[in-house]
Amino acid sequence: MTRVLVIGGDAAGMSAAAALRRRLPDAYEVVVLERDAWTSYSACGIPYWVAGDVAEADDLVARSPEQHRKNGIDLRTGTAAVAIDLEAREVETDAGERLAFDVLIVATGAEPLRPDLPGIDGEGVLGVQSLGDGQAVIDALEQKPKNVVVVGSGYVGLEMAEAFVARGIGTTVVEKAPVPLSIIEPSLGEKVAEAMRGRGIELLTDAAVEGFELDDDGHVRGVVVDGETIPADLVVLGLGVRARSDLAAAAGLPTGVKGGIVTDARQRVAGADRVWAAGDCVETRDRTTDLPIHLPLGTHANKQGMVVADDVAATLLGEPNRLTFPGVVQTAITKFCALEISRTGLGEQQAKDAAFDPVVVSIQTSDRAGYMPEPGEMTVLLVADRQTRRLLGVQVVGSENAGLRVDAAATAITAGMTVDDVVMLDLAYAPPFASVWSPIQVAARAAVKALDS
Amino acid sequence: MTRVLVIGGDAAGMSAAAALRRRLPDAYEVVVLERDAWTSYSACGIPYWVAGDVAEADDLVARSPEQHRKNGIDLRTGTAAVAIDLEAREVETDAGERLAFDVLIVATGAEPLRPDLPGIDGEGVLGVQSLGDGQAVIDALEQKPKNVVVVGSGYVGLEMAEAFVARGIGTTVVEKAPVPLSIIEPSLGEKVAEAMRGRGIELLTDAAVEGFELDDDGHVRGVVVDGETIPADLVVLGLGVRARSDLAAAAGLPTGVKGGIVTDARQRVAGADRVWAAGDCVETRDRTTDLPIHLPLGTHANKQGMVVADDVAATLLGEPNRLTFPGVVQTAITKFCALEISRTGLGEQQAKDAAFDPVVVSIQTSDRAGYMPEPGEMTVLLVADRQTRRLLGVQVVGSENAGLRVDAAATAITAGMTVDDVVMLDLAYAPPFASVWSPIQVAARAAVKALDS
Repeated sequence: MTRVLVIGGDAAGMSAAAALRRRLPDAYEVVVLERDAWTSYSACGIPYWVAGDVAEADDLVARSPEQHRKNGIDLRTGTAAVAIDLEAREVETDAGERLAFDVLIVATGAEPLRPDLPGIDGEGVLGVQSLGDGQAVIDALEQKPKNVVVVGSGYVGLEMAEAFVARGIGTTVVEKAPVPLSIIEPSLGEKVAEAMRGRGIELLTDAAVEGFELDDDGHVRGVVVDGETIPADLVVLGLGVRARSDLAAAAGLPTGVKGGIVTDARQRVAGADRVWAAGDCVETRDRTTDLPIHLPLGTHANKQGMVVADDVAATLLGEPNRLTFPGVVQTAITKFCALEISRTGLGEQQAKDAAFDPVVVSIQTSDRAGYMPEPGEMTVLLVADRQTRRLLGVQVVGSENAGLRVDAAATAITAGMTVDDVVMLDLAYAPPFASVWSPIQVAARAAVKALDS
Repeated sequence: MTRVLVIGGDAAGMSAAAALRRRLPDAYEVVVLERDAWTSYSACGIPYWVAGDVAEADDLVARSPEQHRKNGIDLRTGTAAVAIDLEAREVETDAGERLAFDVLIVATGAEPLRPDLPGIDGEGVLGVQSLGDGQAVIDALEQKPKNVVVVGSGYVGLEMAEAFVARGIGTTVVEKAPVPLSIIEPSLGEKVAEAMRGRGIELLTDAAVEGFELDDDGHVRGVVVDGETIPADLVVLGLGVRARSDLAAAAGLPTGVKGGIVTDARQRVAGADRVWAAGDCVETRDRTTDLPIHLPLGTHANKQGMVVADDVAATLLGEPNRLTFPGVVQTAITKFCALEISRTGLGEQQAKDAAFDPVVVSIQTSDRAGYMPEPGEMTVLLVADRQTRRLLGVQVVGSENAGLRVDAAATAITAGMTVDDVVMLDLAYAPPFASVWSPIQVAARAAVKALDS
C-alpha cells in the first residue's frame, strides 16, 4: 500500500490530507501525525477566545479529529514526529514507532519566538500559537491576574492586549520600536498607539525587555524593562514566530528565511524526492520582489495545502499538475477596537531594499461622501516606484469600511498595475461607500501628482 | 483670446473646466454654461437629501459657482445652450447670445426617461436627476403626501423608496420585471425584494404602468397599473436615464447607445474638430467586451473630465497627451437599509450576448470567521468564461462589509485574471473580516469546481 504521511494536523497539513483523501483511491493510505489534540483550528481566533467572544477551543476547530477520521484519514493525535529518515523513507514518532512513507508532507507550522532572557521559562510566560497555548492563557485567567504584560506589538500582541483590556485586566504592552505594529509605516503606527492608549492600555515604546522576575514557585511576577520591574501575573509573548523546521533541518532538508523550509512553486522541498512542505513551516516568495519571505498565515497555509494535494495526486496518479502557489503580496489586516488596520505590498524600506525608488504619499479621506452622516476617517499610505510608476504597496488605517480596501490594491499589485492604471479602475461608488473617488484612488492620484512634479 | 467653452457645469464639465483653468495660462478663457443654478453637485446624494440625512441642496455641492468663479472660470449659471454651430464655431444661448469657441466641451449630462404615458406630464410626477429635480421632491414633501409611488426599481428607485419609508410615507414601488434591481441577477434580486417588503414597501413586480390619473388641478392622484389605480400624491420616476444629447445630435455630432455621444478614448467627439465630450452624455465602452455602453455615473464623469482637460491642454499647448479613459467594467454599489448590493463585470445574459460561454455559480458565506459573534451573511454570484476560465463578473448581496468586496473583483476583471488566478490572490484575512478564504475566493473556488467538472 502506498502511504502518504503528513506531519502536522493544522491548516496546511489537514487541507492537503483531506483533499488527497478525496482524490486518491482507497489503495492509498493517508496518515497524519499531530502532536496536539486538535486539528484544523484557527490560531488567529485565539485572541477572540481569550476576549470571551468565542466560548471554547472547539469553536475554533473547523474540522475535528473525529470528522477527519470519518473521512478515511488515519489521524494520530497526540503523536509527534521526532525524526525523519529520508534514506530509509521513514518517520520516527515519540512513541518509538517507525512509519514508512512513499510521500512525505511536512506541515509542522511555526513556533513563537522566545528570546533567551532570564526567567523566560517561568510559569505564566506564554506564547499564543497553538490551541494548547490558548488554553494555557484561558487557564491563567482563572487565577484572576491583575496585571498582564504583552511583549511585542505585532497584530497578535495587539489583539491579545485588546482581549485582556476587554476583561478588565490592567494591560501593558512593551515594544522595542518607537511605534507599535511594525507591519505598517511608523506614521500609521502612531494612530494605532493613540488608539491603544485611548483604550487604557499602558504602551511602552522604545522599551527593551531584559528579563522576567519569578516568585519562589517559579511563577512570573514581573517584567524587567530598561532596569525597571513592571508587575505582571501573566506575560504573553507576541514577538512573532519562526518556522518550526528543526525536524526537517535535522533530516537535511534546506531551510531559509526564519527557518522556513525551501520549496518550489509546487511546494516540493528543494533537492528531496517526493517530499512536500506547506504552511507556516515554509519559506515563500513575494510576488513583486521575487525575494524569499516567511509569511505564516492561515490563508497561505490553506492555499499551499491545496497545491500540495494537487501535485502529490498528480505525481502518484501520473496526471498533469494543475496548481502552483504563486507567492504572496504581504496582505494583512487586523482590528483594534473600532480601528481597522491593513496593508498590502511593500512598505517604504522594503521597496528600497528591493532596489525600487519608492515615492510615498499619504492622504486622509472619508469612508463615504462628505455630506453623509457620521463619516468615518481613514488614512491611506501608498508606495509607488518612481521609474516604472508601478503600485508597490498600500496601507490603510481607519474606521469601519476601511480595512478591506486593500483587497483591490493587492489585486492591482499582483497584476503589476501602475498608479495611473489604479486611477482609472472602475471601483464601486455610491455615497454610503466613498466619495466619487475610492480612497485607494485618492491616494493613487496623490502619487501621480508626486511622480509628475 | 482662445476660448474653451464648456456646456454643462456638473461633474464632467466642471472637473474639466477646473483642471484646464489650473493648467492653461491666463490668455486662455474658460467659459462654462450651466442652465441650472448649481455646479459640481452629487446627484447620487439626492435620495439622502430626501431621506433627511442631508440637510440641504448646498451640502451636495462639492464646489459652488462662487468658488469656481473665484478660481477664474467664467461660469454662467442659469444659461442654457440652445444650439451648437460647428461650422461657425459658435454656441447660441437661451439669452440669444452667440459665443465663439476654439475648443468645445459637451458635458450636458443625462435626463430621466419619461415614457409617453397618459398623465406623465402631470404635476407631482417627478424625475430625480438634477438638484432642481431633488428640490421639487423636497417641495412636494411639504404638502405631506400620504402615498408615494416609485416607478422602476433601479438603484435610484430603491434609494428613493427607502427615503420615503424613512419619512413614514406609504410607499409603493412598481417594477415591470419579475424582480427588482435589474443590474443584478434575478436570484439576488429576490433578496432585495424580500428586504424591501420587510421594510414595509409595497412592491409590485411584473407590473406595467399604464398612465397617471390627475385631479382637476392637473396634479397626480393615482398611478394606473395593470388596469387598477394606486393612489399617489407624488410619483417618482426611476426608470433610468438617457444621454442629454439632443443639442449635440442637432449639431450633427454622432450619438450611439441611449443617445450617448460617440468619442474616442481621449474623449474627442468622433469626426469633429476640437470638440470633446464627457460624463453622462457620452457613450463609453466595456473593458471586457469592448462593446459600447451608456453608463452614467459620477465616478466615470470625473475621470472623463480629467481626461478631457489633459487632452485639451495638450492640444492647445502642443504637449503630449498623457491620459485616456480606458472604459468601464460596470461596477455599481448601493445600499437598501442594512443590505449592501454590488456588482461588477458582466451578468450571465451580458456574457452570452458578448459570445462568452458563461459558467455561473452562487455561494453563501459569512463576512467573518464562522466562530465570531454576530456573523453577517452574504451571497456571492460569479460569472466565468468556460473556455478561457476568465473572471467575467461578480455580484454581492449581503450585510455590512459585503458590498465593497466587488472592488477586488473589478480589479481582477480589468487585469484579465482567470478564476484560478483569483483563488491564489493574497486577499486580506483576519477573523473579523473573512473566513480563511475571502468571499470572492469562495465563489472563485466554486467556479473552478464547476469548470473542472
